[in-house]
Amino acid sequence: MDPYRQVVLAARPEGLPRAGNFRVETGPMPEPLEGQVLVATKFLSLDPYMRGRMNDAESYAPPVNVGGVMEGEVVAEVVRSRHPSFSQGELVQGRIGWRTHAAVAPRDLQKVDTGLNPPETSLGVLGMPGFTAYAGLRAIGQPKPGETVVVSSAAGAVGSVVGQLAQLAGARAVGIAGGAAKCAYVRDELGFDAAVDHKAHGLSKALAAACPDGIDVYFENVGGPIWNAGLPLLNRYARVPVCGLIAHYNGDAPAEPNSVAETMLAILRRSLLIRGFINTEFAPQLYRAFLSEITPLVHSGRIRYREHVVDGLEAAPQAFIGMLEGRNFGKTLVRVS
Amino acid sequence: MDPYRQVVLAARPEGLPRAGNFRVETGPMPEPLEGQVLVATKFLSLDPYMRGRMNDAESYAPPVNVGGVMEGEVVAEVVRSRHPSFSQGELVQGRIGWRTHAAVAPRDLQKVDTGLNPPETSLGVLGMPGFTAYAGLRAIGQPKPGETVVVSSAAGAVGSVVGQLAQLAGARAVGIAGGAAKCAYVRDELGFDAAVDHKAHGLSKALAAACPDGIDVYFENVGGPIWNAGLPLLNRYARVPVCGLIAHYNGDAPAEPNSVAETMLAILRRSLLIRGFINTEFAPQLYRAFLSEITPLVHSGRIRYREHVVDGLEAAPQAFIGMLEGRNFGKTLVRVS
Repeated sequence: MDPYRQVVLAARPEGLPRAGNFRVETGPMPEPLEGQVLVATKFLSLDPYMRGRMNDAESYAPPVNVGGVMEGEVVAEVVRSRHPSFSQGELVQGRIGWRTHAAVAPRDLQKVDTGLNPPETSLGVLGMPGFTAYAGLRAIGQPKPGETVVVSSAAGAVGSVVGQLAQLAGARAVGIAGGAAKCAYVRDELGFDAAVDHKAHGLSKALAAACPDGIDVYFENVGGPIWNAGLPLLNRYARVPVCGLIAHYNGDAPAEPNSVAETMLAILRRSLLIRGFINTEFAPQLYRAFLSEITPLVHSGRIRYREHVVDGLEAAPQAFIGMLEGRNFGKTLVRVS
Repeated sequence: MDPYRQVVLAARPEGLPRAGNFRVETGPMPEPLEGQVLVATKFLSLDPYMRGRMNDAESYAPPVNVGGVMEGEVVAEVVRSRHPSFSQGELVQGRIGWRTHAAVAPRDLQKVDTGLNPPETSLGVLGMPGFTAYAGLRAIGQPKPGETVVVSSAAGAVGSVVGQLAQLAGARAVGIAGGAAKCAYVRDELGFDAAVDHKAHGLSKALAAACPDGIDVYFENVGGPIWNAGLPLLNRYARVPVCGLIAHYNGDAPAEPNSVAETMLAILRRSLLIRGFINTEFAPQLYRAFLSEITPLVHSGRIRYREHVVDGLEAAPQAFIGMLEGRNFGKTLVRVS
C-alpha cells in the first residue's frame, strides 16, 4: 500500500491561492475502529467551492482551519473492512478530504452508483456537479421549449450539463467559455446552439448576437464582467439560478462604478427572479430522479462530459489553482492511486 | 360643472421633478360618443411608479410623451351616460390620467367595488397599492408563522398593508419609515412589532436590533442605503419581493464603491430569492381573493390605512413631488371635485 499523505491548508490565501497556501504531509496509516472501514482514495474531486473554505469567512459551511486537511469528495476503494455491509474491493464515495486514505464510519460513505458508467463520474456528471446543474435548472431555471438558456463556465463540470439538459427540455443553449478551444468543444462536441468566448473582445455584443430573442434563463457560475454582459439581455420574467461566482471568490474584482442600482432596477422593471442555491437544498426531493434520468443518458452518450485528470495527490494544489484560473478543461479530478 | 383641466408633462425631469416639469391646461369639455360615458374625477391617485413614466426610458410601460397628459388612476362619477350599463351618479374607476373629466368607453372603466368602505379606498388599501402588498407577500414573500418580515416605506400605501398582512400570517412585522411620527404611526396605530427610523443615525444597528432573529422576508419599496442595511440581516432562504426602488427613481443615488459582488455573493451563500414584480402579473389569479379577503378586514378596522389628501387638480404636482421626497404620510390622493 502507498504511504499515507494528506494536503493541508498551510496559510489562508489573499486573492488567487498559490502553492505556498498548501502543504503535503505524510503520517501514519489510519487504523479503522470496529464498525469502520479503511478506504484508499482513487479519485479526488476538485471544485470551485473549495476556495470559499480557505477563507475565514461566511459561506455555506465552516472554513477549513489553518493546518487542517483540505475538504473534498473522493471515490475510494475499501481496503479493509470492520463493518459487515462493506467488503474489501468495493467502491465508495465520501467527503474524506485531500488524503490518500481514511478510516471512516459507514454513515459517511455511500456505495458508488453509476450504473455502467466509470466510477469517477460519481464525482462529476453523475455526482455533485451534475446534480447541481440538474437541480438549478429544474427547480429554479425551469426552461420552456423555445426559450434561450445561457450558462457561464459552459465547458465546466456544471455548465456542460446545464446546456445539454436545457436542450433536452427543448430550449436553445448558449454557452460562455474562455478561449476558442473550449468554445469549439461546447458547440461541436456538447452540441450547444452557440458558444461565446469571454476572453475575446466584445463579449456583450457577441452574447447579444448569440441570443437574438434575449435570455430566459441565465445560469450563473462566474459573475463579474460576464454577469454584466448577461444582465441587459435578460427578458421579462427571466430566471437566474446563481450557482457560483468564481470571478469573485478571490476577492480581486476590478474597481468599477457601483451598479447595484442598475441591477435592482432591472430586477424590478423586468420582473426578474434571482435565486442563489446550493445543490444540497434540493437533494432530498430531486436526487433519485436525477440519477435515474441522467445515468442512462450519460451511458448512451446523449449527455457528454469531459475530465481534466492529474496524477498523484501532490498535483492537487496546482490543479486546483489551474481550475480557478480557468486553465483546466472539463471536470477536474486527481487520480490518487 | 367645473371647467375641464388636465396636467401634462411639460418637460422631462432631471433627478427629482420640479413644478416646471408639469403644466396645468384648460380645454373644452370632452364629448362622449354613443356607447361612451362622461366621467368627472373625484379622486386622483398619485403613486411612485409615475416617476418612471416621466423618463424616456425602459420601464413596465411606454413613457408619457412631453406635452401628454400624466397617467394615473382615478375614482370618478358618471355625469352623462351614452351606454346602457352606466347611469348618472354611479362611481367608476379607471386610468384616465391627471384630468378633471374624460369621455371613456366602458372597457376602460370598472365600477367601484369597496363594499362598505369609502370609494377612494379603491385607489389605496383596496386598490392597486393594497393588491401590490397582497400579491408580493403571498406569491413571493410567503411568510410563515414566527418569521420576521421587514418592509421599507412602511407608512406608505403598500408598506402599511404588507406589515399588517404579515402579522395576519403569524409573522413578526418590522417597518422602516422616515421620521419619528411615521415610526410612531407604524408601531402604535398599525400595530407593527417594531419600527426603525431611516432618517436617524445608525440604521444598520437599529434594524439589526429590531430583527434579533434576522430577516426572512424583506419587502423592498426603497432600495439604496435601506437595502444595504437589510442585506446583511437576510437569513438563509430569505425572500425579497422587489416592489419599488424609490431611492433610485430620480437617478441621483450617492456614489459608492461597487457592491454588486457582495450582493451576488450574499445571494449565493445564503440561497436568497430576489424577485422583482408588478402587481398586474398576479392579477388574474389573485385579485378576487384579495378583494374578498381584505375588504371585510378594512371595514372591521383590522387592517388600517391612512390617506394624505390634497385639494384640487392644480395641487397634484406638488403632492407628487412631496411623495417622492417622503414628505407625505399615507396614500397620496388628490380630491379633484
